[in-house]
Amino acid sequence: MTRSTPSIGVALLGLGNVGGGVVRLLDDNAHAIQARLGARLHVRAIAVRDPDKAQRVVEVDRALLTDLEHAIARPDVDLVCELIGGTTDARRAVLAAIAAGKHVVTANKALLAEHGAEVFAAAEAAGVDVYYEAAVCGGVPIIRVLREGLASDRVEALWGIVNGTSNYILSTMTETRRAFADILRDAQALGYAEADPALDIGGGDAAHKLAILVGLCFGTTVDVHAIPTEGIAPVAPIDLAYAERFGYVVKPLAIARDHGHAVEARVHPALVPGNWLLADVSGAKNAVYVQSYALGGSMYYGAGAGMLPTAMAVVSDMIEIGRNMYARAAGAPVRPRPAEARPLLPLADIRTKYYLRFGVVDQPGVLGQLMTILGAHRVSIAQVVQGTGEPVQVVVVTHEAREGDMRAALAEIDRLAVVCEAARVIRIAG
Amino acid sequence: MTRSTPSIGVALLGLGNVGGGVVRLLDDNAHAIQARLGARLHVRAIAVRDPDKAQRVVEVDRALLTDLEHAIARPDVDLVCELIGGTTDARRAVLAAIAAGKHVVTANKALLAEHGAEVFAAAEAAGVDVYYEAAVCGGVPIIRVLREGLASDRVEALWGIVNGTSNYILSTMTETRRAFADILRDAQALGYAEADPALDIGGGDAAHKLAILVGLCFGTTVDVHAIPTEGIAPVAPIDLAYAERFGYVVKPLAIARDHGHAVEARVHPALVPGNWLLADVSGAKNAVYVQSYALGGSMYYGAGAGMLPTAMAVVSDMIEIGRNMYARAAGAPVRPRPAEARPLLPLADIRTKYYLRFGVVDQPGVLGQLMTILGAHRVSIAQVVQGTGEPVQVVVVTHEAREGDMRAALAEIDRLAVVCEAARVIRIAG
Repeated sequence: MTRSTPSIGVALLGLGNVGGGVVRLLDDNAHAIQARLGARLHVRAIAVRDPDKAQRVVEVDRALLTDLEHAIARPDVDLVCELIGGTTDARRAVLAAIAAGKHVVTANKALLAEHGAEVFAAAEAAGVDVYYEAAVCGGVPIIRVLREGLASDRVEALWGIVNGTSNYILSTMTETRRAFADILRDAQALGYAEADPALDIGGGDAAHKLAILVGLCFGTTVDVHAIPTEGIAPVAPIDLAYAERFGYVVKPLAIARDHGHAVEARVHPALVPGNWLLADVSGAKNAVYVQSYALGGSMYYGAGAGMLPTAMAVVSDMIEIGRNMYARAAGAPVRPRPAEARPLLPLADIRTKYYLRFGVVDQPGVLGQLMTILGAHRVSIAQVVQGTGEPVQVVVVTHEAREGDMRAALAEIDRLAVVCEAARVIRIAG
Repeated sequence: MTRSTPSIGVALLGLGNVGGGVVRLLDDNAHAIQARLGARLHVRAIAVRDPDKAQRVVEVDRALLTDLEHAIARPDVDLVCELIGGTTDARRAVLAAIAAGKHVVTANKALLAEHGAEVFAAAEAAGVDVYYEAAVCGGVPIIRVLREGLASDRVEALWGIVNGTSNYILSTMTETRRAFADILRDAQALGYAEADPALDIGGGDAAHKLAILVGLCFGTTVDVHAIPTEGIAPVAPIDLAYAERFGYVVKPLAIARDHGHAVEARVHPALVPGNWLLADVSGAKNAVYVQSYALGGSMYYGAGAGMLPTAMAVVSDMIEIGRNMYARAAGAPVRPRPAEARPLLPLADIRTKYYLRFGVVDQPGVLGQLMTILGAHRVSIAQVVQGTGEPVQVVVVTHEAREGDMRAALAEIDRLAVVCEAARVIRIAG
């Protein structure tokens, strides 16, 4: 580095896996980053909980280690990179950084999904940037694509595989036809799933990401806790087999659609057509399929987690903030208008196709009863397969129907004496 | 529009399909664009060859129609959008716009592939932006992804399906097993192929796009005419059948790899593994699969052509230039350093796997002769299938070998008396 190279001061909050990746990437790609930015990204402080901890993900100069307050307050820090996670300390740190006039990069989806409106309003008032590419789909630059690449377009709907753990488990179940609990245990042993996997497999992590995508695509904020969210645990190997028979694959989806007056958003496992690109997104990979007015269908695919992919997204955000800093006029930059509030479409009002599996007693006329009740509730049938065994498995693929109608039909069916087990429902997407 | 809304003056050069799409999109999405940019994109002039032409793609105010010089020179024009195509008038117009201090958006891949260095140097000297998202893969924001999304990463290699016409023809051949010439005739009738399809099916269009991608990813300029380029015409239905038998699909690829001292770049049809995402990119769609240091494999997929997808990329570039204009300080912005010149790797030195098909006379010992010659040239065999018919078809899939060695072996084989027709070669990718 020559003496004349300008530099941008960075404070890292947190030095876990992603923080370590950021340090490594800034070092490995220093030359290329400096060539692209025309400046050096210089880490001036790293906030850690315990500065005396012996083992770290990467070697760093111990003189850089400090606490949150000191890292944020340093006058030579222009940009604060929040990698501590959670929504309490992280929220406080991010708001403090913004108040101190520092730009912010964060990978924290929970923070943005729960407190995004507060964070963005504070940044707007302070005239600083908040970038968050790593918060959704790790290294896949989906935020940048939606914000800039499709800036002139209008997103109508999107379908995302945004949780790698769920996708890994369902992909492995599909390949091996082994049960959910078995695969989860293996995934935990291999480090593909957390010791407490609830947020991943329960869909909460995907709901956080979906709330961020909805805000970006539809210009509205949604209450993340109001997003209908179902995990993958109820998906049984037999469902995967029937799905395949009908030409589908089961994937963990986050789905959003703009209805104008309202916004549809939901997280659940879904059958997707085997010839759709999303069907081939396997293992721990992430992808988002976007349907927009001008471009039509487009898809963005890659590593949704991992040390270097996530760090890559963080450092690319730093570079963009650096470019903005050098380009920005003295006055505040032009910013998009505040989001309009729009309600979430009630789950009962969504329309989709359904995969329904019933366990019934083996006697004549049962199938007719099921069909009659579904028909009475305006749920029209595309395909039916009646298996064998005890109870007999009846699997139905419907045409598009209203969720409320379908649920009313199921409530009635589940009360029939000939029905042995509650109906299994998986929505169909694409 | 309220009176206080700032506006950015735009001159459109050309009002064909894409120009018409730009006018339509600026109109259809005016509200959203203004909300995102904080300013209005105002078309102040449209340069057309014949202002008196009766029929146009879209209705426009006739008072806007003018010639190139006047459109560029207007003092209320900040941004010139070049959509006239070709490399003569377009080059002159773009350089004139830059000299006049106007920002430029272009969808012209030929211009950038052939005169990119000149155009970017002029823009750098004048302190204006040149954006060109629509030049590669139409609406798929691959330029933005590579420049910004992966700004902190290092691209190692890429494989692109970047010509929709070639992909449409090969996809349809794969589905129907009909011959190339038949499908091409149908595609022309349907408007999926130009009346003169040479640039598309011969690979020239893909080579232009690859030259742009190489410049962006590897920071070097390559002579587009030096890129080894082969079209799809020689691919026969029998090759598609054998490819499928080996688990492959034939796709029209543009391939680049960074070798440090040199850069590999080539355009040709290739066998790709059936389980690779690129194998599922069918019809006229485009996709680029990127292998990078930090992110690993990622893919970007969508419409590579068409009125609205291409116009969408153009208008998104306009929005970004508008943002830059409002954000830019009085001084010149920081720009990346000029590209380093690096040689193209000679085709003889590339290493890949090959699909080879030989037509030989039906007599014992022929297979042995072929294998012996391949082995003598260090071309190691992975699989062999011997068909029937007259001549007998021998199909070989090799391990990775040096192109020069493989060519030397084929030259020797083609001289054998038992060989009835010149060997067919298709490289294998992925």
